[in-house]
Amino acid sequence: MQHRVDHEQRRRKLVDALWRLAETRGLDGVGMREIAKEAGVSLGQLQHYFSGKEELLLVALTQNGERAGARVRQRLQDLGGRATPYRIIRTSLQEMLPLDRESRAGLLVHLAYLSRAVHDDQLRAITKDATTPLAALFADQLRRAAEDGDLAADRNPETEAGLLICLAEGLTNYVLLDVYTAEVAQSMLDDYLATLFTPAARSGHDQ
Amino acid sequence: MQHRVDHEQRRRKLVDALWRLAETRGLDGVGMREIAKEAGVSLGQLQHYFSGKEELLLVALTQNGERAGARVRQRLQDLGGRATPYRIIRTSLQEMLPLDRESRAGLLVHLAYLSRAVHDDQLRAITKDATTPLAALFADQLRRAAEDGDLAADRNPETEAGLLICLAEGLTNYVLLDVYTAEVAQSMLDDYLATLFTPAARSGHDQ
Repeated sequence: MQHRVDHEQRRRKLVDALWRLAETRGLDGVGMREIAKEAGVSLGQLQHYFSGKEELLLVALTQNGERAGARVRQRLQDLGGRATPYRIIRTSLQEMLPLDRESRAGLLVHLAYLSRAVHDDQLRAITKDATTPLAALFADQLRRAAEDGDLAADRNPETEAGLLICLAEGLTNYVLLDVYTAEVAQSMLDDYLATLFTPAARSGHDQ
Repeated sequence: MQHRVDHEQRRRKLVDALWRLAETRGLDGVGMREIAKEAGVSLGQLQHYFSGKEELLLVALTQNGERAGARVRQRLQDLGGRATPYRIIRTSLQEMLPLDRESRAGLLVHLAYLSRAVHDDQLRAITKDATTPLAALFADQLRRAAEDGDLAADRNPETEAGLLICLAEGLTNYVLLDVYTAEVAQSMLDDYLATLFTPAARSGHDQ
């Protein structure tokens, strides 16, 4: 048992090194040697736990998804009875933007993975698997809003769900590239939601 | 003079090797050695022309911008007298998506550059420099549409210009990751434009 705990702790320490590299210098061109150095272990020790950079990236991506999911769940729980479609969608989208250090680091891992995934079937499947339930959640909430008369009349819930996800992805790129500040991105998102939901659906909500 | 032509031809051949690598296996983890091999020259010969991968990427990015700009200009010229704000914006956005092999290759170079640019001031400035005039063009056209009563009443031209660029960027990522086909992305973009422009502004236009 003790042995198992040690193993998990060691793996965590190595993945943490990858996270730090993602934040500080980016993962492009970073090999196993640099990751081992950052973690303060030998290349052989690193390779004992992870077959290569791909496996480390996969673990980091999975962790990222779990952390982001936990953050969204916590924030939705905080909403309690005030969890309207508008609030649920706004809260989820905000968590997709690099608005704080943790989400920024997560999105840098995502970015490093992006350029690899284009040429790797297995990696590419991860985004698809993550996007489908998110798009379904958004579409559900938008349908609920439409039933309550809270959605702008000309919008289709399924299409809007996909557009919102793409918009958050694009905004994220531009925040990471310093084209927009996090505040501007957040306000652009709010401007968009203001055309998507009726004023009544947004009234009394934290802007 | 002959010498100068040879020099330019050689540089072009080396950049072409980078383009091929971007298309076939991606640029992540690709070093000068692989680029030299792809171009069929020695590492020393490659280094004679380019100081490193960053410089090659910069040249490829500049070429990419020039090619994309030329494609848009050609398509806008083809529109001739039919160049309404709706058509100008739709045409430009379509050219930002990976709808054919050339634009896909260009966007793969963009993606490779993206994860580097986050940690590199000089590279980051390029996106900013490219985004500002594009956002200004879109805002101009949207203002023109608003004056003609062709823009949905609740939209702000400046905000919409930025949102459209982010949307195209996000859609591009999802097409490159096979979450959406090029056709679906194009139709999502059209759905978006259908809520942005009045039906009158779009009527009689190629859908």
